[in-house]
Amino acid sequence: MLKVGIIGATGYAGNELFRLLQFHREVTIDWLYSRTENGTYSSDYRNFFDVCDLDLTNGELSDLIKKEDVVFSAAPQGFLSKLLTEDILRDTKIIDLSADYRLKNVKTYEEWYKLEHGSPELLKDAVYGLSEIYRDEIRSTRLLANPGCYTTCSILTAWPLVKEHLIETDTLVINALSGVSGAGRGAKKDNLFCELNENAHAYGVTVHRHTPEIEEQLSIAGGSEIRLNFTPHIVPMNRGILVTAIANVKSGIDKETIKSAYEKYYGSEHFIRLLPEGKNPETRFVEGSNYVDIGFVLDQRTGRVVMMGALDNLVKGAAGQAVQNMNLMFGFDESEGINQIPMVP
Amino acid sequence: MLKVGIIGATGYAGNELFRLLQFHREVTIDWLYSRTENGTYSSDYRNFFDVCDLDLTNGELSDLIKKEDVVFSAAPQGFLSKLLTEDILRDTKIIDLSADYRLKNVKTYEEWYKLEHGSPELLKDAVYGLSEIYRDEIRSTRLLANPGCYTTCSILTAWPLVKEHLIETDTLVINALSGVSGAGRGAKKDNLFCELNENAHAYGVTVHRHTPEIEEQLSIAGGSEIRLNFTPHIVPMNRGILVTAIANVKSGIDKETIKSAYEKYYGSEHFIRLLPEGKNPETRFVEGSNYVDIGFVLDQRTGRVVMMGALDNLVKGAAGQAVQNMNLMFGFDESEGINQIPMVP
Amino acid sequence: MLKVGIIGATGYAGNELFRLLQFHREVTIDWLYSRTENGTYSSDYRNFFDVCDLDLTNGELSDLIKKEDVVFSAAPQGFLSKLLTEDILRDTKIIDLSADYRLKNVKTYEEWYKLEHGSPELLKDAVYGLSEIYRDEIRSTRLLANPGCYTTCSILTAWPLVKEHLIETDTLVINALSGVSGAGRGAKKDNLFCELNENAHAYGVTVHRHTPEIEEQLSIAGGSEIRLNFTPHIVPMNRGILVTAIANVKSGIDKETIKSAYEKYYGSEHFIRLLPEGKNPETRFVEGSNYVDIGFVLDQRTGRVVMMGALDNLVKGAAGQAVQNMNLMFGFDESEGINQIPMVP
Amino acid sequence: MLKVGIIGATGYAGNELFRLLQFHREVTIDWLYSRTENGTYSSDYRNFFDVCDLDLTNGELSDLIKKEDVVFSAAPQGFLSKLLTEDILRDTKIIDLSADYRLKNVKTYEEWYKLEHGSPELLKDAVYGLSEIYRDEIRSTRLLANPGCYTTCSILTAWPLVKEHLIETDTLVINALSGVSGAGRGAKKDNLFCELNENAHAYGVTVHRHTPEIEEQLSIAGGSEIRLNFTPHIVPMNRGILVTAIANVKSGIDKETIKSAYEKYYGSEHFIRLLPEGKNPETRFVEGSNYVDIGFVLDQRTGRVVMMGALDNLVKGAAGQAVQNMNLMFGFDESEGINQIPMVP
Repeated sequence: MLKVGIIGATGYAGNELFRLLQFHREVTIDWLYSRTENGTYSSDYRNFFDVCDLDLTNGELSDLIKKEDVVFSAAPQGFLSKLLTEDILRDTKIIDLSADYRLKNVKTYEEWYKLEHGSPELLKDAVYGLSEIYRDEIRSTRLLANPGCYTTCSILTAWPLVKEHLIETDTLVINALSGVSGAGRGAKKDNLFCELNENAHAYGVTVHRHTPEIEEQLSIAGGSEIRLNFTPHIVPMNRGILVTAIANVKSGIDKETIKSAYEKYYGSEHFIRLLPEGKNPETRFVEGSNYVDIGFVLDQRTGRVVMMGALDNLVKGAAGQAVQNMNLMFGFDESEGINQIPMVP
Repeated sequence: MLKVGIIGATGYAGNELFRLLQFHREVTIDWLYSRTENGTYSSDYRNFFDVCDLDLTNGELSDLIKKEDVVFSAAPQGFLSKLLTEDILRDTKIIDLSADYRLKNVKTYEEWYKLEHGSPELLKDAVYGLSEIYRDEIRSTRLLANPGCYTTCSILTAWPLVKEHLIETDTLVINALSGVSGAGRGAKKDNLFCELNENAHAYGVTVHRHTPEIEEQLSIAGGSEIRLNFTPHIVPMNRGILVTAIANVKSGIDKETIKSAYEKYYGSEHFIRLLPEGKNPETRFVEGSNYVDIGFVLDQRTGRVVMMGALDNLVKGAAGQAVQNMNLMFGFDESEGINQIPMVP
Repeated sequence: MLKVGIIGATGYAGNELFRLLQFHREVTIDWLYSRTENGTYSSDYRNFFDVCDLDLTNGELSDLIKKEDVVFSAAPQGFLSKLLTEDILRDTKIIDLSADYRLKNVKTYEEWYKLEHGSPELLKDAVYGLSEIYRDEIRSTRLLANPGCYTTCSILTAWPLVKEHLIETDTLVINALSGVSGAGRGAKKDNLFCELNENAHAYGVTVHRHTPEIEEQLSIAGGSEIRLNFTPHIVPMNRGILVTAIANVKSGIDKETIKSAYEKYYGSEHFIRLLPEGKNPETRFVEGSNYVDIGFVLDQRTGRVVMMGALDNLVKGAAGQAVQNMNLMFGFDESEGINQIPMVP
Repeated sequence: MLKVGIIGATGYAGNELFRLLQFHREVTIDWLYSRTENGTYSSDYRNFFDVCDLDLTNGELSDLIKKEDVVFSAAPQGFLSKLLTEDILRDTKIIDLSADYRLKNVKTYEEWYKLEHGSPELLKDAVYGLSEIYRDEIRSTRLLANPGCYTTCSILTAWPLVKEHLIETDTLVINALSGVSGAGRGAKKDNLFCELNENAHAYGVTVHRHTPEIEEQLSIAGGSEIRLNFTPHIVPMNRGILVTAIANVKSGIDKETIKSAYEKYYGSEHFIRLLPEGKNPETRFVEGSNYVDIGFVLDQRTGRVVMMGALDNLVKGAAGQAVQNMNLMFGFDESEGINQIPMVP
């Protein structure tokens, strides 16, 4: 049994990670660490009442980590980069759900996140954990940078068409809708029920921090630098990311070519479901699961393709993909522990 | 492997049943029957897309049933009672999620449901499937009447106090809140999003059809006839039943006595979680799981006890309890396939 | 034009009050006071953008108040009682939306609210502002204690039956559902979207602070002391209170008698709508308005009556009733400024 | 007093129209017509209980119309075009909330709506009722084609930048989010609470029928034919449209130029609120009102401008704009009856 610790277990992603790991037959969870809370985990997250009686720990973290085979960190950006060292990585594999090790360029990180990076020397070791794209690199890494929720959905939705050079990448614009759990569990007025219920709005327009992550990855896919607009919106639901990406297709590209590109990259992927023509992704059909649903419509009239993707921001967009990556890193079946079927309604 | 068929698979309870049975290691699902729909199941319920490619069947139902070890029926009341025969029961065990075999008295059924019962002679064979209460009878039955969502929650919440004669049963009143999935998937104006969102109201006041079922069971518990008021309300959420039951306690009854009664009946029950003092049940903490959370407050000032229970209407209130009962009927581990941890948020 | 100030304008009730007063043809609002916020009111409450450009003031409150004809206070309990003096009341009429002057007995206040009362000597001057019940007293008061949202709905729903001695008051129990805006705008984890959406639960069970207010008023109606259980629940919607009250009817009481009692007290009330038989109150049908919808069902089978009431907690449950009371206090038409029709959906 | 009739009063837009007209001091409503329902209007729409006791009529419509000064039709597309004649228009002004007279080209209508147009000869008489844009034409028309909800928001959001040639119109893409009331009140499975709650998805991708209306109007603004992609999404809330439009700005265009363009067209418009920099439109801040909130962000990095607009689909997107147009057509104050302040929360 793999020995596991979780940092940041009291956030929504931490809770979801803890939930998913209960289904995993190869792990045992040794501790749940919180910087700010203490007491029995299940007295706050009462979904775990009578299921698990672990207490939160606030112990010396470096020591705690070194006793484990793998540690997940769901703490906010800037936390892990100040803690992590080469020494720790020698003993323990790390899966970081924050943005600290996602961007290869430390300057880009510091510009978009307004944070100083605590361990830029470790960036070269980090592998970007988009499981379907970097499967081989993930298998052998000891430092896994788990992608963000918006980014997982945006990149996977556009990847095959960018990779196969089917679209004019300088025309690519991405809109995204997110459920509220993506905003975290901090006690802020902006996240109160009455501020978000019966409301929709865009935020972080032109400056959202997932933008450079999407750009970096799609640039890798396309082989040249891509700049794009990513516009996220908050809508009144707990979970779900819905991405609507649109771009001009290159001359002569037809529906079959686009379909083939998606099938080439995702046709045998367990967690990516390519919807048949006429069906658009809906967040409800992936809720609680690690699936990404992808569909597209080619508009002959305008020469554009509308690419759409949906996932559960706490599963494939955070905890589920983290477990998927752990499975790859330790040679387990890739879907172990994360084979939940979406829950409807 | 147990061979299983599902009647009424296109309703919300049917879908949930199908979902839960995917986790069950001892069953294989042979067919999904629908009276009204056809085509591939997952083209409508796209949570099952790429997971299961069964088509709906509209075949001759008596024949279909007889080939299976067990058949679940999630069709509306009145359907199964007209279909079921002694002959069918000889070959196949039946778990009925409708009300057809819940009430022992056929007159009560016909009065409250305004339906003629199609097979009153089979009522004597039926066992009421409140798993924690009738475990032994369930193990040996071939016709299982799975309780309703309101009733499971109401009965379990009040049972120990009625059984132990701690409350004045003629003062018992039950209020309940339900998520909308309890109202089914019929295309009715009353169930449209804009009619129920941002809205709360009581319905079926004094005449809701779960009333006699609650009364019958609590009368059995208390050993004398109980009449009570049950008032259900619809609130704007997908899932969840919350019961608030209130009654005068008998003279001299204190908090410890009540606590002991709950522990006597439920202390070792896997799916019933007795909350510590000061914690009230919340539907979110049981969502997606087979748990019932129960708590109480004794009001010395008024001499009343407020009993509260929460469950997921589609799981413990329907499909989950149906699987739990199947497990009992076939000697499997009682929690096989239904050990999901509640999903928060 | 009446000169008006508003204390606590940045809460939801304060905002609603400000909104309603825009429709009032006899008032002009001089200032909006906030203890904690500053800046232009409409930069936060952007519903007022381009409508009103008042800045929040943090000035010396006693001075501010004395310049006005009437001041509304929507600050939390304990604030106004420490500020208010006989001297202030000589110049300015006060309408307090907090609980400070609602209970006649200062001990009851201090027990239930865990606060010391700052000006118990003024309690004798205060009139309880249930407009339909205390219309005459309200007309002549200078200190108006505006009732709470739960209490307005609970008291009005039960009043005629208690007053006419139609029910056994020692059997009366009240359940209530509330939208989230009743919990205020404080940045607390418990009020986050993801903690309340898709969730229902009871809270304040046996100890909710609106209990003594309901008991005091219904005791006055019935002419003897009433103790009851009041159990509030939070359900996932912005606005609305739904009360379900239940009690044994006295021997021989029939439907017509109950109907007559409601008509006797409310038959000519503009803001109370007695629903026809078979229709239950729904919160959506009063949203945004000052109406209270009331209905009942007599259960011959159990000898109980189920009384139901619905109102908008921010209008008739707070700001709307405050304006109604101001209209009475200053001799305006009682419905001036508050004749909004409920907004559906 | 203007004599008014409403066709299609039982839909959400019809109900909202009826609500708004109650505030209008110059009209009296003579009848409410429904093709499918009958009985007292307020027995279904209980927001009107005790407010208005009109019965629905199913009488001979041509006769009914001719007795009125103005008739609003909120019936579905295809209904009015088959009824309306030159003869009717001689007696009565018509405000049509459907799409029948919005598109100048009857072929475009028939292609996108899959309907035969019943009175193409009247199209030349129709004025497109975007009040802020076609004010003068509206004043003198007798046949007013009231714009759709998506289109009002989309066109107003982009109009000044298209009109002033600040953007490359062949790069313009429009995404929109809509509350569920836009889908109407038909009893369809797709509009059930449990199908839409906790769900977001795009629909009508590349083929939504509001597309040609947006294209036609923006082509008029820009002076040359524009083709664009319009992608609508349904999100779980009752009301609200949020438009996010994005386009490349022309070389040398800066923030001030864009701001000036918006101010040039909307600076003195009562119902259009130009938000200050850093504030994005939110649907909650226009709910229940006739306002459109507009903001933008210029992205120097990508050379694109993100334009955002929000309105209430039932008010400015339907009934409110219809009243605004009636006010123009009859010389009333333009905001008579529609000066509601947005209701928060």
